[in-house]
Amino acid sequence: MAGKRRSPTRPQRRRKSGGTRRRAAVRAARGPSADAILADLKRRLAEIYDLNSAGAVLGWDEATYMPAGGAPARGRQSALLRRLAHERFVDPALGRALDRLEPQAGKLAPADASLIRVVRRDHAKSVKVPAEYVARASAHGSASYNAWTAARPANDFAAMIPFLETTLELGREYAAFFAPYDHIADPMIDDADEGMTTATVQRLFTELRKELVPLARAICDQPPPEDAFLRRTFGEAEQLAFGLGVARQMGYDLARGRLDKTHHPFCTKFAAGDVRITTRVRENDIGDALFSTLHEAGHAMYEQGVDAALEGTPLGSGVSAGVHESQSRLWENVVARSRPFWEHWYPALQRTFAAQLGAVPLDAFHRAINKVERSLIRTDSDEVTYNLHIMLRFDLELALLEGRLRVKDLPEAWRAGMLAGVGVAPSNDRDGCLQDVHWYGGGIGGAFQSYTIGNILSAQFFAAATRAHPDIPGEIARGRFTTLHRWLTDNIYRHGRTAPPGEIVARATGSAMTTAPYLAYLRGKYGTLYRLPAL
Amino acid sequence: MAGKRRSPTRPQRRRKSGGTRRRAAVRAARGPSADAILADLKRRLAEIYDLNSAGAVLGWDEATYMPAGGAPARGRQSALLRRLAHERFVDPALGRALDRLEPQAGKLAPADASLIRVVRRDHAKSVKVPAEYVARASAHGSASYNAWTAARPANDFAAMIPFLETTLELGREYAAFFAPYDHIADPMIDDADEGMTTATVQRLFTELRKELVPLARAICDQPPPEDAFLRRTFGEAEQLAFGLGVARQMGYDLARGRLDKTHHPFCTKFAAGDVRITTRVRENDIGDALFSTLHEAGHAMYEQGVDAALEGTPLGSGVSAGVHESQSRLWENVVARSRPFWEHWYPALQRTFAAQLGAVPLDAFHRAINKVERSLIRTDSDEVTYNLHIMLRFDLELALLEGRLRVKDLPEAWRAGMLAGVGVAPSNDRDGCLQDVHWYGGGIGGAFQSYTIGNILSAQFFAAATRAHPDIPGEIARGRFTTLHRWLTDNIYRHGRTAPPGEIVARATGSAMTTAPYLAYLRGKYGTLYRLPAL
Repeated sequence: MAGKRRSPTRPQRRRKSGGTRRRAAVRAARGPSADAILADLKRRLAEIYDLNSAGAVLGWDEATYMPAGGAPARGRQSALLRRLAHERFVDPALGRALDRLEPQAGKLAPADASLIRVVRRDHAKSVKVPAEYVARASAHGSASYNAWTAARPANDFAAMIPFLETTLELGREYAAFFAPYDHIADPMIDDADEGMTTATVQRLFTELRKELVPLARAICDQPPPEDAFLRRTFGEAEQLAFGLGVARQMGYDLARGRLDKTHHPFCTKFAAGDVRITTRVRENDIGDALFSTLHEAGHAMYEQGVDAALEGTPLGSGVSAGVHESQSRLWENVVARSRPFWEHWYPALQRTFAAQLGAVPLDAFHRAINKVERSLIRTDSDEVTYNLHIMLRFDLELALLEGRLRVKDLPEAWRAGMLAGVGVAPSNDRDGCLQDVHWYGGGIGGAFQSYTIGNILSAQFFAAATRAHPDIPGEIARGRFTTLHRWLTDNIYRHGRTAPPGEIVARATGSAMTTAPYLAYLRGKYGTLYRLPAL
Repeated sequence: MAGKRRSPTRPQRRRKSGGTRRRAAVRAARGPSADAILADLKRRLAEIYDLNSAGAVLGWDEATYMPAGGAPARGRQSALLRRLAHERFVDPALGRALDRLEPQAGKLAPADASLIRVVRRDHAKSVKVPAEYVARASAHGSASYNAWTAARPANDFAAMIPFLETTLELGREYAAFFAPYDHIADPMIDDADEGMTTATVQRLFTELRKELVPLARAICDQPPPEDAFLRRTFGEAEQLAFGLGVARQMGYDLARGRLDKTHHPFCTKFAAGDVRITTRVRENDIGDALFSTLHEAGHAMYEQGVDAALEGTPLGSGVSAGVHESQSRLWENVVARSRPFWEHWYPALQRTFAAQLGAVPLDAFHRAINKVERSLIRTDSDEVTYNLHIMLRFDLELALLEGRLRVKDLPEAWRAGMLAGVGVAPSNDRDGCLQDVHWYGGGIGGAFQSYTIGNILSAQFFAAATRAHPDIPGEIARGRFTTLHRWLTDNIYRHGRTAPPGEIVARATGSAMTTAPYLAYLRGKYGTLYRLPAL
């Protein structure tokens, strides 16, 4: 635990002297001491943390093992825990504790000063949003999600129009709690990625698009690599065991984690000692379980790596959605889709699936798992076109929030945007604007940019780690991840939220977020794979 | 939901007339109406129920899937949910609501009148126990349990003496909250089995012992049946699937339940729609997983059968520990160790384990799973000697509570009691007085009697069901359980806690609890199996 530091110049008193008693009397007259207020604040935060963690257990169970009949009660139980946590967090007494502590932040231990800063940020946001709004938005989110689970397979966008219109209204209402702002999406973006704005994201995206569109075009002009062998039949148990074996070797600690099956893979944390991942398995696709396991393991290693002293406070977790995503992407893509990685692991995979892959050479396998193509579905897309999918969604949600695009015109705008950006358009809405849960379950705005921020940062962090330790690719080729994992832990993981994301990035990499390493990574990797002329 | 009934003699008004408004004004002057108080009470109870259910999910996860690293935080999270539920239940406002409602109980719907009675009983008990005691006892229970998990394998009773002495002190302190009482164990027994006392349990046990000791002796004078084939190697997946298939056929609804593996099998309920069972599997023992699955399925069918209208209130669960145990024993023993049951299921079991059981005749299998022997471990013991193990524990805990037996003398008293009752004594404490968790994890007194009450009632209920529907054994021999399951649902399950256990028993069977059907069942079954002369 981040303990209070005593000034070394002040002698410690072990017995309660007359002086101590007099000071205690003075303190009593002035109200509780900063120490007492801080201790009370931490107690309150720990209780909120435990309520949220209990809620996370319920959510994990709901997505993994819960029988269908458990759903109605589970909704009630989860809502109750959320409400109890929220009530405690917006308690005015918590705000008053912050008021008392903030003027003294300079005298506190650095971790405690960070705590005050982060709790103030979260608290100030929370108290701006009325409980009535939270309940209304949450109820609408559940109803909309349920409608979407039926509407997507039925390709019925019309059914979602009224839901989406309400979601949009709720989004505008939410933004208004944080007025004034430069752009209506700014409050949502700042929730996920502290310090980012619509304008900064748009600048990044413009830079990326200028490079990615010609890169994707140059690649797609080449003959596509053979990849049919990835879709042979691969036993579920063997797939799960292989992926988990790799994750463990990367540094995912199974004494403090586990892997279960679900429909939509996720990582969840119940405590520093219990960070779980989930995956799904397709028996006719060797990549699905493997890469989603390693993706979630990236998130999990981040959470497992946070300094244990920060547990139970808002400092004890990943610093932002974008930095979190950088870790899933780093391990899934930069590491586990690299040539050195498979130099070590491919023989083991071939032994596991001898009949299916025994005759497939390493190079062919490596090209296949890095196949670039103009595809319809974001979650199935490759590293090069993935960001184009994201940018489309980001542009469209800005247009919706600004009122430039009407909900009913979304499908057509989607098709036009896909053609312009990715170069292919869906023939139906199921594979178009109905494909992602985000707008139908939660809200519009503030979620998609984190994926691309994650991609950008994954390369920036990996480049910095490799600058510091040039042997990292060599280690990976020998099946070792220790140096990389240690660098990430030291430079990112252990800090939790003690510094803002921009500061974490700058300290770890020596510069602010920049697209250069990511573009260099893509150009280098795909230039080689597709034998492109120098771009 | 148990709705309020309007008096049929009073015309219903559908529009708000002037008269209604006037009455509303009168009510406002007198404070909230009984309806409003009842609605508020139910809201409070539902929140307590949801907190307890959330805690049950955490407990289930802890016992099934939680990685070791999750333990410290899980302890905190569970304790927090327990505390929040407890605080809400002992809230004086809840007591005042009961004060207001009790005089009007005669005018309430029967289910609401039952609710007031049961909540008063539970509330009156809860408020007598100070929060400080609950926290202290709970912390001691955890510490003692942890010590026991090390002391039992090490055969180290000395290490447990100080824990057990504190446990005993806590037990006496607990009883004192409910003074005056006839016997110091009465308050604990009444917690588990409403209406039972030390004196009534002792009378039952004396009756049983008089019959069981000679019955066990007569059986053990016979040559034991061959049962080595039960300990061949049986695949885990097949064992689990077979047991769950039988449980489902018995009536355990898997849309509202599921089976997972654990160390110590249990049944847990998160909602009417989510009642789960757990089992353990020994690959060298075909009986362990099977009978523990069916045992827990018996508990689960009881909970699944409670009238859904009672969900979210203290009425919505089994009525007492003893009646609950009667259902696990009825399905596990009376049904699933019977000859008719195996006439249907044995061919299927033989197909599943052809190499292991293909050559073993039905009669030999049936005799083997009903083998009676003087054994050391309660949980492995047979139907005849099981109760002798229970009586020893019950006698010893009375002696400890009364101060007739010192903790340090427990091992010797255990050995003497085993010799006198079961006819065999352990050479070490691991297989002696250290074998059961009860005294080391929770408390001394009030738990063991429920097992024997369950055995007695299992036969009494089955006899009553068979009197009403003489074809039940025939149906079981055809693999059908519908009539039995329906009779149990109608006569026991659906009532939840709406009537006290004694009333449930009397209404279902036509008499108070009696040992006669149980003794007749044992004499009949084992007389035939062991070809005993008429006893």
